[in-house]
Amino acid sequence: MVVSNLKENALLLHEQHQGKLTVKAKMAVENEEDLSLVYSPGVAEPCREIEKNEDLAYKYTMKSSMVGVVTDGSAVLGLGNIGAQAALPVMEGKAVLFKNFADVDAFPICLNTQDPDEVIQAVTQMAPTFGGINLEDIKAPHCFYIEEELKKTLDIPIFHDDQHGTAIVTLAGLVNALKLTEKEFSSIRVVINGAGAAGVAIVKLLRAFGVSDMILCDSKGAIYEGRNEGMNKIKDEIASYTNKDRLKGDLRSVIKDSDVFIGVSLADLVDEEMVKSMATDPIIFAMANPDPEIRPEKAIQAGAKVIGTGRSDYPNQVNNVLAFPGIFKGALSVFASEINEEMKTAAVHAIANLISRSELTSDYVIPNPFDKRVSEAVAQAVSDMAVKTGVARTR
Amino acid sequence: MVVSNLKENALLLHEQHQGKLTVKAKMAVENEEDLSLVYSPGVAEPCREIEKNEDLAYKYTMKSSMVGVVTDGSAVLGLGNIGAQAALPVMEGKAVLFKNFADVDAFPICLNTQDPDEVIQAVTQMAPTFGGINLEDIKAPHCFYIEEELKKTLDIPIFHDDQHGTAIVTLAGLVNALKLTEKEFSSIRVVINGAGAAGVAIVKLLRAFGVSDMILCDSKGAIYEGRNEGMNKIKDEIASYTNKDRLKGDLRSVIKDSDVFIGVSLADLVDEEMVKSMATDPIIFAMANPDPEIRPEKAIQAGAKVIGTGRSDYPNQVNNVLAFPGIFKGALSVFASEINEEMKTAAVHAIANLISRSELTSDYVIPNPFDKRVSEAVAQAVSDMAVKTGVARTR
Repeated sequence: MVVSNLKENALLLHEQHQGKLTVKAKMAVENEEDLSLVYSPGVAEPCREIEKNEDLAYKYTMKSSMVGVVTDGSAVLGLGNIGAQAALPVMEGKAVLFKNFADVDAFPICLNTQDPDEVIQAVTQMAPTFGGINLEDIKAPHCFYIEEELKKTLDIPIFHDDQHGTAIVTLAGLVNALKLTEKEFSSIRVVINGAGAAGVAIVKLLRAFGVSDMILCDSKGAIYEGRNEGMNKIKDEIASYTNKDRLKGDLRSVIKDSDVFIGVSLADLVDEEMVKSMATDPIIFAMANPDPEIRPEKAIQAGAKVIGTGRSDYPNQVNNVLAFPGIFKGALSVFASEINEEMKTAAVHAIANLISRSELTSDYVIPNPFDKRVSEAVAQAVSDMAVKTGVARTR
Repeated sequence: MVVSNLKENALLLHEQHQGKLTVKAKMAVENEEDLSLVYSPGVAEPCREIEKNEDLAYKYTMKSSMVGVVTDGSAVLGLGNIGAQAALPVMEGKAVLFKNFADVDAFPICLNTQDPDEVIQAVTQMAPTFGGINLEDIKAPHCFYIEEELKKTLDIPIFHDDQHGTAIVTLAGLVNALKLTEKEFSSIRVVINGAGAAGVAIVKLLRAFGVSDMILCDSKGAIYEGRNEGMNKIKDEIASYTNKDRLKGDLRSVIKDSDVFIGVSLADLVDEEMVKSMATDPIIFAMANPDPEIRPEKAIQAGAKVIGTGRSDYPNQVNNVLAFPGIFKGALSVFASEINEEMKTAAVHAIANLISRSELTSDYVIPNPFDKRVSEAVAQAVSDMAVKTGVARTR
């Protein structure tokens, strides 16, 4: 499809359907008796039960299967801060993906505020409706604070997909790429470029996987403990356990001798010379959208062993749809109170393990987004781990 | 159905389905091309259009057909202040009725706060998602303040159904009852018992229909200008244009010589002697739930010409389902910015006029809730009036 057609067709699709989501009743109301069960007076019974024990909302209401997809419209796709109203098509789309890939009900809430405390308050207040909250397209560093605070106060899963979805799929690809290159998490050096939502979450998840040698870069170059310029709370925290040699300088200088480059930044920041400066069998995830930090063909020519991007027209697409539908399906299936680190790790392995050792090639370290096994495998691993770590509610 | 079975069956129905609502996508996502239209990169196009002109959200998103059903759980059915979580089955039920009776998409939002300013803030913030807001089961007098403030600031319909839905259906019944008794709005005396959400809205709508002689009573008796006990802002306002003779005393004393009694209060407050004290051909709407202010058989024995209740096992059921689905359908069909008084009046006449003069009897002044003509007739009348009064958006 050429680009102009894509634009026209996308507008046409949205106009024809007047949006992408509809609400359906699970049962018909055809007569007085139906009405008395679905609504007054029969509906009073589940209300009374839930009033006595709030957890019974999981038994009698849609809370058991309903995810709120919440944004403040501050960092929408590659479009930036377009506001709550203009973000609605993306949030509807996200809900369509939840439904399509894992049969999870999801509903968009576009909040007309970008004050992080007001976002926290609004989500806290509407929580009774939902069994989980997927935060979406909220700019850094607000997204870290909002997620952290909501996790403290709410007893339902809070998951910022731009952070954790991207990190989980990237790690799944990296697990498999390391098998191919016969390297270990504990001994690799990883350079991550981009200190936004995704970059920060990737660093944290790499750490959980045992990576001790890593450097996070932002537009001002390597982040190190004691750097003064352009720091914030989360960068300070990351500086405390990364870049132990306090390397300074730009991406070109710190990428040297690294085993893995992970880009969540901007197009064309990496050239062939930089790839050649990396250690043997370099692994590259160049996920800038729509154009990656380096084109796959150039990276391979320069010696990259594995390259993944955000694009569907190249192998190894890092697509969040491999993670979030199954993760929420798994969490909701056991009425989990949170999505903890162990559950995220379980999701990484579930995705990676769908590709057997014999199937594994440089062009196939990440499953295809339309691989129908994915969401079920992720859901099973996540729900098992929720039970194991004690965050599942028993009915 | 006996009561114990109703309770058991209602619990069973809610448990079997784990609630009553589900979200569906309007289109399939089966391949890369579908994904590129529904989500990235195609979805950026409607986003860009809406960023330029927010009204285009009606063209490209579900906002065009989505009603938020919002409660704070403070006055739920006859159950009282059961809180947000326990209110969810009722709000889901309401959404089922929206869908079933008028094919309107509706989604429950149960807010975990009963501070009216926080409710206002939350609804204001989530407004981008919705084409209209149905406020539900919020206690008086908070409900008046919340509705009033939201109407000032938001450019989508705000409609508190417990007020206006009940008032509209009651007025429809009264329009027809007056035809039967050959009386006029301008010359009748009406006594309304119950100064909560419904009672207040009924008084306001009666006024709009030309009733000048009316008395609103609460648990302390007739409300009159200058009364000191148990007053609030809204009662003061109503006292300024009702009960012009400043009658004092209880319901038994003020009901004397009235043409119409409207009860939205408690069971068994009206006896046969009181009905006999009314003017000729008394009209009674006794809508206390589940047991009316007077049983229909007793009212008729005492000389009532017309009696309506909230019950389905008697004639003339005042059921809000006759009003709210069609009203929102009509408002949404023209992307109305509000539901004004003229649109409510149009809904009253649309409901009343479904019963022709020749069909009209004491037992048939209000259409049956399952009469399939109702929501369409109401929607048409409401959308026509929205256009006529200039609150419709043009696409």
